[in-house]
Amino acid sequence: MHPLDAADPLAHYREQFVQSPDVAAYLDGNSLGRPLRSMAAHVSAFIDDQWGGRLIRGWDEGWMELGQQVGDDLGRVALGAAAGQTTIGDSTTVLLYKLVRAAVAARPGRREILIDRDNFPTDRYVVEGVASELGMSISWIDEGDVTPERVGVTSDTALVVLSQVAYRSGFLADVPEITSLVHEAGALMLWDLCHSVGVVPTQLDEWGVDLAVGCTYKYLNGGPGAPAFAYVASRHESLRQPIQGWLGSKQPFEMGQGYEPADGIRRFLSGTPPVIGTLAMRDMIALIEQAGIDPIRAKSEALTGHALDLIDELLPDVTVSTPRDPARRGSHVTIDHPSFAELVPQLWASGIFPDFRRPSGIRLGLSPLSTSFAEVELGVRAIAAALAR
Amino acid sequence: MHPLDAADPLAHYREQFVQSPDVAAYLDGNSLGRPLRSMAAHVSAFIDDQWGGRLIRGWDEGWMELGQQVGDDLGRVALGAAAGQTTIGDSTTVLLYKLVRAAVAARPGRREILIDRDNFPTDRYVVEGVASELGMSISWIDEGDVTPERVGVTSDTALVVLSQVAYRSGFLADVPEITSLVHEAGALMLWDLCHSVGVVPTQLDEWGVDLAVGCTYKYLNGGPGAPAFAYVASRHESLRQPIQGWLGSKQPFEMGQGYEPADGIRRFLSGTPPVIGTLAMRDMIALIEQAGIDPIRAKSEALTGHALDLIDELLPDVTVSTPRDPARRGSHVTIDHPSFAELVPQLWASGIFPDFRRPSGIRLGLSPLSTSFAEVELGVRAIAAALAR
Repeated sequence: MHPLDAADPLAHYREQFVQSPDVAAYLDGNSLGRPLRSMAAHVSAFIDDQWGGRLIRGWDEGWMELGQQVGDDLGRVALGAAAGQTTIGDSTTVLLYKLVRAAVAARPGRREILIDRDNFPTDRYVVEGVASELGMSISWIDEGDVTPERVGVTSDTALVVLSQVAYRSGFLADVPEITSLVHEAGALMLWDLCHSVGVVPTQLDEWGVDLAVGCTYKYLNGGPGAPAFAYVASRHESLRQPIQGWLGSKQPFEMGQGYEPADGIRRFLSGTPPVIGTLAMRDMIALIEQAGIDPIRAKSEALTGHALDLIDELLPDVTVSTPRDPARRGSHVTIDHPSFAELVPQLWASGIFPDFRRPSGIRLGLSPLSTSFAEVELGVRAIAAALAR
Repeated sequence: MHPLDAADPLAHYREQFVQSPDVAAYLDGNSLGRPLRSMAAHVSAFIDDQWGGRLIRGWDEGWMELGQQVGDDLGRVALGAAAGQTTIGDSTTVLLYKLVRAAVAARPGRREILIDRDNFPTDRYVVEGVASELGMSISWIDEGDVTPERVGVTSDTALVVLSQVAYRSGFLADVPEITSLVHEAGALMLWDLCHSVGVVPTQLDEWGVDLAVGCTYKYLNGGPGAPAFAYVASRHESLRQPIQGWLGSKQPFEMGQGYEPADGIRRFLSGTPPVIGTLAMRDMIALIEQAGIDPIRAKSEALTGHALDLIDELLPDVTVSTPRDPARRGSHVTIDHPSFAELVPQLWASGIFPDFRRPSGIRLGLSPLSTSFAEVELGVRAIAAALAR
């Protein structure tokens, strides 16, 4: 056993995840987390016993509130969010659209949305679409990591949309500092937590964050295309989102005339809650609670730190874009080399699975409860060997 | 065995569905279809072998196209839609929002959307929201079933939004006739197939339908909150929907600057495809193909006809709002009586599960592959006995 694994208090959690026979090192937890071994049995029992057994009664017995209940669990375990402000539902993109529209409507007269060019494409595309349909303009942070001094918020800024962890570099933004300066200018702040939720703790309530979204299939291991989550601070519960559906209405089963939004977080929903899609993430959220988000963060820093040490030692010719300061990095490490486009398929074929980002980037996505130090070492050594060939 | 079940060529399919020990008659297939017995094992194998085994490789091995593939299957089996025009994703509400926005943008200068007051709430709420945000007006069909003469489309109508089967009465609209008169006025036609898909065959291509949406958890047995489907006729593939996400963009993995919509049906997607949520419906679509949508429709007419006969015989005091003409009714029968609000909980407690709609409606939703004639008889007799007490 690798000495760092032997000393790791979280090492035993790895046994709870499904292992794949042809995968020696899975370094892509930042793209798709592994399933827990408990998940198949839980989903399958739901299908036969709950869906098949309770049938339509299930909606009255917890399915209808499942998204809010899992949202509350996630808020407590990983977000620093009190109950009633977080829900599961839709995709990250659809939730971004709803929250961006809701936010800019709450800042009438302000004509600008601020976002960075390095933000994940869907965030940029949503903001571009909303700006275009409402005749607003976009203020771009053109390059570089999102440090507070680069956030040029003005009295014309309605909303700032940023990612806590940059999907390319792994840079971890200073959420409280940036949120505070955005508020000083009178704008609202929407954080995308896709690349950080479950591995970097946040204190959304304490930091005064207005709005947040994130996906659940990376470090929350909810499965491919699992529904996303949205956080709306309770002081913003009068915001209006544009996709008026029956399950965001005040009295869905009255089937009445005229949409009246529900109170609280439910008004940000639209259609029927995706019950089966929401099941898998529950086990992982429970596991995060058991292990503790702070020990998980500590192991994440150790894993990425170990990866950086190995890269310095074994890969002198690659460019490292991830910050050295652990306080400024998420849970993945990004390196670039002109040969990576050619090498990654060979690595995959030999059972080593980093993530590849065009044109020449490798991301090592390290998920603390399922990734071992031995896997990191195996992965970096395999990259070094492939580069040497 | 009930003689009608003994003579029913589809009777044996019922064994393929999960049975619930405390459910004697399930008459709510129009709200939530039963799971197939194969589903739990298939979903569970997906979790362990595909998600857990293939991990990130799965996206290149079919997950990314799963929604379009299942959409094509659905189009072939139940919609009369050639490949490339149907996809699974999002909720019905979100898809309605996208298609309503896309459609009215394609009829600039026309200021009106036509819809009926009896349409399902989410359809009305979406249309009200879009009309309000774009400064359009709504032309309401104020009451009655949606017959062609009630569809008052004018030269100012951009879009008509109607349900093929009315969720309350079970009235089946004349889709080809109405679509044709809407086109004569130069408007676009969006059909909501939620209450008919899988049980009433359509010929969307042949009938010249422009747009359609529907849910998959009723007669397609996709499970609670399973993702919905959208159909966009290939001649409309230049329409633009407003929720610009990375997976509706032309080159998602280029992660480039500026949204450019994908060609074809994929441009109507936004976020990451809901893979696990899409799995369960596949088995049911395959079963519908095996049984044949026309025999399914024939049994549906026989089931609803038998229910009406029994109601006439045993329930003289109820009001029947479902058409007597089988060509004008879907797969549920709706009856009203002032005592139903009180009686339905008693019926449920005794294992008889009709659907209840406030204030006083019982809907008997009959899903041909999982509902027997004996169940219908048991259900109507139980209602009669409860009313007699």
